Amino acid sequence: MRDFSADHRWLSINTATVRRQRGTEWPLPNILEACAARGIRAVSPWRDQVAAAGLDATARQLRTLDLELSGYCRGGMFTYTDAASRQAVRDDNRRALDEACTLGAACLVLVVGGLPGALEGRPAHRDITSAREQVAEGIAALLDDARDRRMPLAIEPLHPMYAADRACVNTLRQALDLCDRLDPGRTGALGVAVDAYHVWWDPELQAQIARAGRERLLALHVCDWLVPTTDMLLDRGMMGDGVIDLQQLRGWAEAAGFEGYSEVEIFSASNWWQRDGSEVLDTCIARHRSVV
Amino acid sequence: MRDFSADHRWLSINTATVRRQRGTEWPLPNILEACAARGIRAVSPWRDQVAAAGLDATARQLRTLDLELSGYCRGGMFTYTDAASRQAVRDDNRRALDEACTLGAACLVLVVGGLPGALEGRPAHRDITSAREQVAEGIAALLDDARDRRMPLAIEPLHPMYAADRACVNTLRQALDLCDRLDPGRTGALGVAVDAYHVWWDPELQAQIARAGRERLLALHVCDWLVPTTDMLLDRGMMGDGVIDLQQLRGWAEAAGFEGYSEVEIFSASNWWQRDGSEVLDTCIARHRSVV
Repeated sequence: MRDFSADHRWLSINTATVRRQRGTEWPLPNILEACAARGIRAVSPWRDQVAAAGLDATARQLRTLDLELSGYCRGGMFTYTDAASRQAVRDDNRRALDEACTLGAACLVLVVGGLPGALEGRPAHRDITSAREQVAEGIAALLDDARDRRMPLAIEPLHPMYAADRACVNTLRQALDLCDRLDPGRTGALGVAVDAYHVWWDPELQAQIARAGRERLLALHVCDWLVPTTDMLLDRGMMGDGVIDLQQLRGWAEAAGFEGYSEVEIFSASNWWQRDGSEVLDTCIARHRSVV
Repeated sequence: MRDFSADHRWLSINTATVRRQRGTEWPLPNILEACAARGIRAVSPWRDQVAAAGLDATARQLRTLDLELSGYCRGGMFTYTDAASRQAVRDDNRRALDEACTLGAACLVLVVGGLPGALEGRPAHRDITSAREQVAEGIAALLDDARDRRMPLAIEPLHPMYAADRACVNTLRQALDLCDRLDPGRTGALGVAVDAYHVWWDPELQAQIARAGRERLLALHVCDWLVPTTDMLLDRGMMGDGVIDLQQLRGWAEAAGFEGYSEVEIFSASNWWQRDGSEVLDTCIARHRSVV
């Protein structure tokens, strides 16, 4: 297992972590500058942040700062209620794919979507099995384009508490079953993003990480599960402040062949988003060394 | 599949559902009276409610009203940090078992506990694997006494969002693996409580219910998953108000041989606990007929 204690060369910052500082938006160009100034070598930005800064301008800035993308957040939300929304989803995912290529991302992360309409508080039905079939169909369609562009797709299983409204792929086993179905040759075109927050509780975690192997382990996201957790979306904790054994998790991933970045992804409305972005980045670096 | 549309003979009320009305405690004797007055044939009370009303007095009242117990809530919380707390947990579970026998419960429901200390906000460690081993050991010890008393133990897998602080058994597969390990003969002494709220998201749900079979399906709890869910503990919805396909779930259970009660278990601090208990019970009856 790689030694992270002496430096932070394998630290990536998901830019959601510092998208707000002191309660207000921190523009992506400033975030990228602050990361590069600290010797951070990789980031994972969100589409809305890139759109606000400009796609081409962001690509240029990344090159200037010599910053890699450990992933691009995100494609997905594949579920739909009619032909028009199905087409709109496909079109939007193709745009996400193109953006990921322009930015030179390591993979496009997929948050697959829940019951159609649920995120807006108006679920169209209760049939999660059909939603899961729509997800498989949507990934299959996107995968053709992704192969052409040599951009790997990383299915991110989300915690079961998001099954209704954000992602109906909720375990690593389920995500890997999808990979086996859609990419049986393990070509590297389709894999998973393992986010500690979403999967730490899973009694099958070690076995499923081993099953995934190097070809399927496309991204590793870290943060912590706080006790108590006070908000279902915006209370992801800083590494070391919660109950996830992150070194054990990384050990399992590395034993399976993973050699990529540990990407810090924190959403913390009441804590870290209220602080100075510099303080947050410095804390990420320190915790990356001490507990990741 | 049994037809629930014409009557509510297979409705049970978990008394947490109406433990508060108009924001204040509704005493158990009044709850039991109100259930019996509506032709409800079964309940599942909580230990603290029984203790407040008196164990023997409650047993007498149940006989007088001809009310069955679909289960008794609850034993468990098996995880510990030292020999003293381990012994205290064992003693407390034996008392719960004795109470369940006195009340003539169909089973003692087990919420197994999370990381020791986590429920108090001070987790003793991050080793969920060792917590799971303590759970297996605790159930094994209690099972000896439970067999002697012919009181079935029902392991209730809790939603993964409770893995840290309430229960580190989080899927039906995991609970059934425990059953296979501790009661390989499928004697009926050990099984599971399937609570729709905790398991509805599971892609393996149908297969695992089939695996459980009649011998292991000791209880079926119903409520609904609301979109959005605003509180991680106290926002369980009324059947029909959320996204769980309860008829499909019951169909799977009955196909596996389950013939017991559908036990309504709602915790709803901001909605149902604010209403009149009579209104809540009448709504449970109506929804039991229409959507369960």
